[in-house]
Amino acid sequence: MNAANQEDNSRLHRVQEMLDSGTMHKVSGLLNALQPGEIAHLLESLPLAEREIMWGLVKEKDGEVLVHLADDVLDDLVSKMDAADIAAAAENLDPDDLADLIQELPATVTNEVLASLDAQSRHRLETVLSYPEDTAGGLMNVDTVTIRPEVTLDTVLRYMRQLGDRVPASTDALIVVNRDDSYLGMLPLARLVTGERSDTVAEVMSVDFVPIPVSKPDTEVAARFERHDLVSAPVIDDDGRLLGRITIDDVVDVIREEGEHQFMGQAGLSEDEDMFAPVFTSARRRAIWLGVNLVTAILASWVIGQFQATIEKLVALAVLMPIVANMGGIAGTQTMTLAIRGIALKQLSLKNLRWLLRKEFAVGFLNSLLWAAMVGIIATIWFNDTSIGWLIAAAMTINLLFAAVSGALIPMILDKFNIDPALAGGVFLTTVTDIVGFLAFLGLATVFLI
Amino acid sequence: MNAANQEDNSRLHRVQEMLDSGTMHKVSGLLNALQPGEIAHLLESLPLAEREIMWGLVKEKDGEVLVHLADDVLDDLVSKMDAADIAAAAENLDPDDLADLIQELPATVTNEVLASLDAQSRHRLETVLSYPEDTAGGLMNVDTVTIRPEVTLDTVLRYMRQLGDRVPASTDALIVVNRDDSYLGMLPLARLVTGERSDTVAEVMSVDFVPIPVSKPDTEVAARFERHDLVSAPVIDDDGRLLGRITIDDVVDVIREEGEHQFMGQAGLSEDEDMFAPVFTSARRRAIWLGVNLVTAILASWVIGQFQATIEKLVALAVLMPIVANMGGIAGTQTMTLAIRGIALKQLSLKNLRWLLRKEFAVGFLNSLLWAAMVGIIATIWFNDTSIGWLIAAAMTINLLFAAVSGALIPMILDKFNIDPALAGGVFLTTVTDIVGFLAFLGLATVFLI
Repeated sequence: MNAANQEDNSRLHRVQEMLDSGTMHKVSGLLNALQPGEIAHLLESLPLAEREIMWGLVKEKDGEVLVHLADDVLDDLVSKMDAADIAAAAENLDPDDLADLIQELPATVTNEVLASLDAQSRHRLETVLSYPEDTAGGLMNVDTVTIRPEVTLDTVLRYMRQLGDRVPASTDALIVVNRDDSYLGMLPLARLVTGERSDTVAEVMSVDFVPIPVSKPDTEVAARFERHDLVSAPVIDDDGRLLGRITIDDVVDVIREEGEHQFMGQAGLSEDEDMFAPVFTSARRRAIWLGVNLVTAILASWVIGQFQATIEKLVALAVLMPIVANMGGIAGTQTMTLAIRGIALKQLSLKNLRWLLRKEFAVGFLNSLLWAAMVGIIATIWFNDTSIGWLIAAAMTINLLFAAVSGALIPMILDKFNIDPALAGGVFLTTVTDIVGFLAFLGLATVFLI
Repeated sequence: MNAANQEDNSRLHRVQEMLDSGTMHKVSGLLNALQPGEIAHLLESLPLAEREIMWGLVKEKDGEVLVHLADDVLDDLVSKMDAADIAAAAENLDPDDLADLIQELPATVTNEVLASLDAQSRHRLETVLSYPEDTAGGLMNVDTVTIRPEVTLDTVLRYMRQLGDRVPASTDALIVVNRDDSYLGMLPLARLVTGERSDTVAEVMSVDFVPIPVSKPDTEVAARFERHDLVSAPVIDDDGRLLGRITIDDVVDVIREEGEHQFMGQAGLSEDEDMFAPVFTSARRRAIWLGVNLVTAILASWVIGQFQATIEKLVALAVLMPIVANMGGIAGTQTMTLAIRGIALKQLSLKNLRWLLRKEFAVGFLNSLLWAAMVGIIATIWFNDTSIGWLIAAAMTINLLFAAVSGALIPMILDKFNIDPALAGGVFLTTVTDIVGFLAFLGLATVFLI
């Protein structure tokens, strides 16, 4: 483990030691000293058996721990709790966190949880639940502190002192609304405490900020937070009425998941995949992915099958053909990775796609020259046959150019059909690069060599 | 484009229209209405020529725009500016942003920029620059508002009003230190405004928060922010003295880059890769990656080469062998992806690696049973030869088991040697799965079929 991993790993290691040695009181002691997020991280790092034991030792913080867990791990633990425990854990969670949690729970438990809430909390929860999880509505919190524009900062300060502990912890700004709750502006606490007492809110509030529509997708909300360096932002409905506010801690999760989704998706895994999921669960999920890829592999083999006669005459072809296919796959993946990120960051439009295509085609051409020559020479020397050298060089050039074009186009086309390029892109790309690779190499051989 | 992309793309599209039609005043008008982060996003989305034109239209916000740009795009633009312009752009940036920027600039320009700063700013900048970019020191900002524990909230409020605009925009908490600047605790503004005027800072400050050591790696800082839901955090030196504070907006960039690094790294690309980098620059970078992978491809071919006699006797082997190699690569990548994320999230230790190995081996075994049988049947029917069916089934089982083990071990081993698994893992894995795949399939064939 390099330095960056020391801290977490030593803690993880300590916990595992304690669990092994059965000194549970030590584990409990450690847990009390940890933040919910840290406990969640530990639980995710533990194999199922140890995880269950440790979860049994998590006491009062259990609700917040659940909120911090990846979905799969959450399901695993919740499936072993009875409704009453879950309801108890769900108490005194923020509505937005509770909403996330509830969407993972079995319906029977959901009702139990709802029943256990007081009227106001239930109302707030139902508000958040009424919006899709992956929109601003699903991210927002409804416990906002609002003020009127006409009052003075002095009045606001007195109001705040009255509220006392009822002011949400993460409050960094107060939201200014008029009588019918329409959003007017924000009053950052920094301005509140630095401004003149006699000034009115309207004089010092900041209005340059555009509130977030409740239906905005969460990835766009995240982009907005990143580009405006926001800490929290108000959420409004179509009539400009204030519904709640989104805080950065929830946005950070969205950004983390976006990154993991692209990375895990390439291997056909979900970003929520539990490293220690039960064998059968994992096997079932993986099987599907392997099956999909088997189809593409068989397709490629079928292409080779068409040239059995050629290969029989010149076995060297069988030796060299994987090189052509593999290099195409590698080159295409580089282009596709750029395109997928471009799409995710909304930086790839139909217009600049043309530019990307031209550029990637040129890059592919330059590299095909370099490596086709290299491979051609190697093949010539290896099999002491110039024609084989020319053959593989030509085939590789063709495949690298195809790879560049399909690497750029496939993600865009998939995205157009609302198929996730991060998940499906690789399968389509390798199908193209394998088939074109084998077809070009064996086809040219059949025409010119045999 | 699906819904999530509408907003950004329409803006990107509008800008490109304007640039084409040469109505520059319209572009300038749009730019004035945008945040630096949004302008940076647009610049990244534009091909080089259009990008340069638009950059020419960016006026007063240019410094902050540069800070928001990906490194490669930044280098591209800066390389075309003269030192004076850059120095002008660099003025009135936060020290931490300025530090990030300066590390990207040519030395000559750096001095010019430093010279253009007043004594205090230069001192602050030099403080930040004295720490590595990828540590808490490199992320932190040094313009903190500090207070003493013994004063009353009333005094603090008066002090804040005196400071007025000099209070940094993103201030959400004041940092409590003693006479020799040792960190004591935090006073969130929310507590300041809700607390009793007569209370002392010591009475209401929160002390449950552990300050961040200046040498902590940025990825660990990010993890800390995520798990504690922080907005800002104090940074201390080894003697517990306050050095500055880190705000979430800088941490968000770290998280975003972590995700992109894993995703882009798999294709041998840097997370800073500019989608529209000049052809030669891209070609040169890609060439290296293709070369590395060519070596592994040739290794695999060499293995096949050892079995030419066998293939000559039974061409069907050449047709089917890619299936064995590919399926191994796919299965191994799934395991490796889990392991790489586990390492990145510091959830994979040597202890639970054993668990992961066992589990992945079991998953691989179950799937090999399923797909080996499937492929065996297909091959039997295809070539109307049972022995070939048995052969490929056996070879595939062997390769899937090897894939599971190497998928889990390779990233851990690479990490131990401080080689980035996200970058190098795939190359090593496919080498294993290709070689084992071909070796098992053709080897078994030589022994039992020929």
